[in-house]
Amino acid sequence: MKFIQGGVVAAKGFTASGIHCGIRKNRTKRDLSLIYSEVLANAASVYTTNLVKGAPLIVTKNNIANGKAQAVICNSGNANTCNANGIEIAEQTCQLLAQGLKIDAKDVIVASTGVIGQPLDIEPIKNGISQLIGELSKNGGENCAEGIMTTDTIKKEVAVEFTLGDKVCRIGGIAKGSGMIHPNMATMLVFITTDCAISSEMLQKALSTDIASTFNMVSVDGDTSTNDMVSVMANGMAGNEEIVAYGEEYAIFMNALNSVTVALCRMIAGDGEGATKLLECSVSGAKDDKNAKIVAKSVICSSLLKAAMFGADANWGRVLCAIGYSGAEVDVNKVGVSFKSNKGEICVCQNGAGIPFSEEIAKEILLEKEIEIIITLGDGNAKATAWGCDLTYDYVKINGDYRT
Amino acid sequence: MKFIQGGVVAAKGFTASGIHCGIRKNRTKRDLSLIYSEVLANAASVYTTNLVKGAPLIVTKNNIANGKAQAVICNSGNANTCNANGIEIAEQTCQLLAQGLKIDAKDVIVASTGVIGQPLDIEPIKNGISQLIGELSKNGGENCAEGIMTTDTIKKEVAVEFTLGDKVCRIGGIAKGSGMIHPNMATMLVFITTDCAISSEMLQKALSTDIASTFNMVSVDGDTSTNDMVSVMANGMAGNEEIVAYGEEYAIFMNALNSVTVALCRMIAGDGEGATKLLECSVSGAKDDKNAKIVAKSVICSSLLKAAMFGADANWGRVLCAIGYSGAEVDVNKVGVSFKSNKGEICVCQNGAGIPFSEEIAKEILLEKEIEIIITLGDGNAKATAWGCDLTYDYVKINGDYRT
Repeated sequence: MKFIQGGVVAAKGFTASGIHCGIRKNRTKRDLSLIYSEVLANAASVYTTNLVKGAPLIVTKNNIANGKAQAVICNSGNANTCNANGIEIAEQTCQLLAQGLKIDAKDVIVASTGVIGQPLDIEPIKNGISQLIGELSKNGGENCAEGIMTTDTIKKEVAVEFTLGDKVCRIGGIAKGSGMIHPNMATMLVFITTDCAISSEMLQKALSTDIASTFNMVSVDGDTSTNDMVSVMANGMAGNEEIVAYGEEYAIFMNALNSVTVALCRMIAGDGEGATKLLECSVSGAKDDKNAKIVAKSVICSSLLKAAMFGADANWGRVLCAIGYSGAEVDVNKVGVSFKSNKGEICVCQNGAGIPFSEEIAKEILLEKEIEIIITLGDGNAKATAWGCDLTYDYVKINGDYRT
Repeated sequence: MKFIQGGVVAAKGFTASGIHCGIRKNRTKRDLSLIYSEVLANAASVYTTNLVKGAPLIVTKNNIANGKAQAVICNSGNANTCNANGIEIAEQTCQLLAQGLKIDAKDVIVASTGVIGQPLDIEPIKNGISQLIGELSKNGGENCAEGIMTTDTIKKEVAVEFTLGDKVCRIGGIAKGSGMIHPNMATMLVFITTDCAISSEMLQKALSTDIASTFNMVSVDGDTSTNDMVSVMANGMAGNEEIVAYGEEYAIFMNALNSVTVALCRMIAGDGEGATKLLECSVSGAKDDKNAKIVAKSVICSSLLKAAMFGADANWGRVLCAIGYSGAEVDVNKVGVSFKSNKGEICVCQNGAGIPFSEEIAKEILLEKEIEIIITLGDGNAKATAWGCDLTYDYVKINGDYRT
């Protein structure tokens, strides 16, 4: 398996586009994206657990209940959530796209991201749909990745190539992240494409299994969005024998999928709203997976620790504190903590108590852009990793006046 | 019942003091506080649920297991937590105080607040104890309130007077708040004194009942501290017949206690680290108390909403979002949201969807210092209130470099 260029259009038979249609006022920002498969694809999706769900999620869930999809359309600038006519608008969007592409409106995955509670005008979408379809191409992946961005500062795309038997397969994905991100379930917006042949059922299993240790372990601000989902389309054009059961080929597919999702998780966390640093919390020695995950998430979510990391302050007491209130079953007297980056690694706590360390070296390590917080619990063999970012002035700035 | 001056020395038989003994480097900051009762008092306490517990909490819990105490000693500048010799230092502190006051070391409530994981030197306490005791007086309440402050910007003290039969009783309290505050249990540091006669057992019941709707409903940053506790001493010097069972007198006492604790909650939330605004979230129409509390806490804890309030942005979608992921059983299609302050009240959401409102008026309301977020769930008769504050640049600044 290797990483390749191409993102969401890396796999055979997929084209994409992204345009400015007028939902966003700023004409330099793309606000409508499209991913299209030449042939009907198997589809799977996971959705936010927030009780308040964006209208597009409800429409998508209904559309792909049969495990099939051929296109994804997603706008930014408006979440189409908490609006009286939300479902209607989302369905109209599917119909407009389906007419243009000459496909069934039920084979469209529709998504929206942006402000909650402002009616979404269908006009810009209606007016833009011809251009959106007209620009579909193998070079459209970057525009497509741009069109789903909100407060993201970088495009998030990744792709991998692997072989199943003698067939070359590809999986690629794009993500929108940044804010309102918390690991209660399928958070953020992620679209994945693959030419690997895999049944809808196994595709859903692969996705649901994978997100438990990937997208569900990312937190930017503890707020679980109303609109987030992760969708995959598998169009089978790689020509491999369709994966219809667990086994070696499924394992290879899972491994490739995981490489794509972990890469997107790191991009989402590192580009969290206002973030200057990617934080990765690695927990080992937990009594079981559940406790490992609880600890990793609690630490990555601590506002106090996030602020300390922004200040490159090796305030490990906040790590202990977050472990202590996490609800996990741990013996706090066995906990060890180290900080690690490109500049090296430093142990700051053993057996639940501080040990002498050089503040100067710790500072040098913590001034880097990617920080690993390594926690050992000494209680078993289970491991977990969670991703997050620091808490900065810019997070407050971005969210203090998001709507205007 | 009426509010009176005097804080923790308002009740008969209590004196207090607060000095700089040298735990903190800044000589203008008091760092050691004392509250003393002329006679042995009944005592009750609640403690943080964090598994990582400060050594002073463990010593206090042991000391007041018999329901008795006569003095409270508390230092700021060092939490005496996650230190190998923590218990020893906390016990030495009790002994030094007991020798000076000629009381039993087992009748001392000891507390610490400040940085976690740095050994607490006993020398400054040893050297300062005579002065601390020497300055005990009826005028020492303010110094005492100052000595427990960390990043607090204002002293927090309150007192009330009420009658039981023909006896005048008083309850007063001081608090330390600011950061690492989250409603998982008895958060923050609060010391309450009363001259009301009430058994240890009923005092503990009163305190445990009260905090469920007061201190447990305050969140500054979602981090539950390792060191927080709320302690009460009742010395009986008001001369009322001792309250030993539920009944009218207990209800009067509870009401007075609640006035003190709610006032301290509001002070703690309004003076949260970096806060410019007190946020009060009032939920009504919940199906039961539990769901009302879950909703109120989830909203008050949302980083996104807190940042929006800092920016005086009526972004009610974030209120809906926080209700949706709270885990409470609610019908999101029945939810109503209003914002209220001294400048008026404005409804922004009905039946789970936005309604037209004047952004200008909303801005004017939200620019005030105390904001009420009013949520109606339309699902029953249960109510709850939670207190918090906005998320600001200064929160990040304070916590980005707390230790240096």
